Amino acid sequence: MILYSYFRSGAAYRVRIAMGLKGIAPELRFVHLTKAGGHQHSIEYRQLNPQGRVPFLIDDEVRLSQSMAIMEYLEETHPEPALLPRDAAGRGRVRSIALALVADIQPLQNLTVTQYLERQLAVEEAKRSSWIVHFNEIGLMALETKLAREPETGRFCHGDSPTLADCCLVPQLFSARRFGVDLKPFPTLTRIEAECQQLPAFQAAAPARQPDAE
Amino acid sequence: MILYSYFRSGAAYRVRIAMGLKGIAPELRFVHLTKAGGHQHSIEYRQLNPQGRVPFLIDDEVRLSQSMAIMEYLEETHPEPALLPRDAAGRGRVRSIALALVADIQPLQNLTVTQYLERQLAVEEAKRSSWIVHFNEIGLMALETKLAREPETGRFCHGDSPTLADCCLVPQLFSARRFGVDLKPFPTLTRIEAECQQLPAFQAAAPARQPDAE
Repeated sequence: MILYSYFRSGAAYRVRIAMGLKGIAPELRFVHLTKAGGHQHSIEYRQLNPQGRVPFLIDDEVRLSQSMAIMEYLEETHPEPALLPRDAAGRGRVRSIALALVADIQPLQNLTVTQYLERQLAVEEAKRSSWIVHFNEIGLMALETKLAREPETGRFCHGDSPTLADCCLVPQLFSARRFGVDLKPFPTLTRIEAECQQLPAFQAAAPARQPDAE
Repeated sequence: MILYSYFRSGAAYRVRIAMGLKGIAPELRFVHLTKAGGHQHSIEYRQLNPQGRVPFLIDDEVRLSQSMAIMEYLEETHPEPALLPRDAAGRGRVRSIALALVADIQPLQNLTVTQYLERQLAVEEAKRSSWIVHFNEIGLMALETKLAREPETGRFCHGDSPTLADCCLVPQLFSARRFGVDLKPFPTLTRIEAECQQLPAFQAAAPARQPDAE
C-alpha cells in the first residue's frame, strides 16, 4: 500500500492516524504542497490524481483520493480494529462529527483558499489569519456543544475507543493551534485530544514525526 | 422520518435525491437560510442542531447532521436500491467522487463564506462571484478529467445505476449554473446530469419543486 502524504496536510494526517490504529504500515511518498512550483502541480502527479491533493492511496489496482473515502476503504478492507461503531446510529454520529471537520472547517483554511485571498483579493496577512480563526472557532464551537451534551461521548468522540471522528479531530486541533486559535473554549475537544495523544498511532502520525517534516 | 430542508441548499438537495431513489417519503420541515434573522439561527433549531445548518435528519431516536453522514445512514438502514457498489474499490471510488463535491467545492460557495467575504472583507459582488466560479471550475475540471478517463464511469458516475456520487453531482451542477459557471468544458458531467434528470427521484428533489421554493 502506498500513501502520498505531506507532513503538514491535515487530511493526510487523518489517514496516517487511521492506518496506525489498524496496524497498516504504508510506503510513504511525499508531495510538497507549499514549495514554489510544488510537486502536487507536477504533470506526473496530476496524471495520477487530477485533484493534485494529498492524501492519495494506491492499493494494488485501487487509486483513491479524499481522506474520508480512503478511511472508509481501510475500514472495509481492514475491519479490525473497527474505527466505526457497529450500530447504524453510532456510525452516523461518528461520520457526522468527522464530516463537520472535513467538510465544514478544513476546506476554508486550505492553502488554495488562503492563496486566493492573498493573490486575487489582496487580503492582507492579518485578515487572512482572522478568516482562518473565525471559521475554526464557529466550527469547533458547534462540535464542542454537541460533544459536551451528548451521552454517546466517552473518553473519545464516541465511546471509549477511537473512531474516524478522532482521526479527524486531532489534526484539526493541531492546525487550529498552529493558526493561533485559542482552544480554551473547547474543553471537551481538548480533553479528547489529550486522550488520543496517549496512543502510539496518534503520536507516530504527528507532522513533526514525518520523514518530510521541515 | 423528518428531514429539515431548504429548497436551495445543495446539501439538502443531495439527501432529497437519495431518499427519493430509496422510496423514502420524509416529513419535510423547512429552515429558511437567507431570510434576515433566518430560522437556522433560532435558538430552538440550534438546540436541536448546534451547527444550525441543513439538512438535518430525525429518525426515531437518531439525530443526524451532515449530508454524507445522512446518506450513509440511509444506505445502511434502507439498503435497497443500493446507492453504493458492492465492492470496496467501487465504494471507495463513489465516496471519493462525492467527497470531492461535498468537501472541496461546495464549502467555498456556502452562504457563511460569501457573507464573510462581503461583510468582513468588503469584497464586492463581482469578485465574490468570481470566487465562486473559480472554485467551481477547478473542482469540476478535476472531476471531469477523472470521470472522462476512467472505465468505471458509465451512464452514471459509477456504472449504469445512480449512486451517492450522482446525488452530489446534480445539486452541484444546479448551483454552478445558478452562479454563472460555464458548463461547456464539462461534457462528461453534464452528460451524466442529463441521464440523472430522466429519473423521477432527481426531478422531484429539484429546488423549484419544493414546497418552500420562492
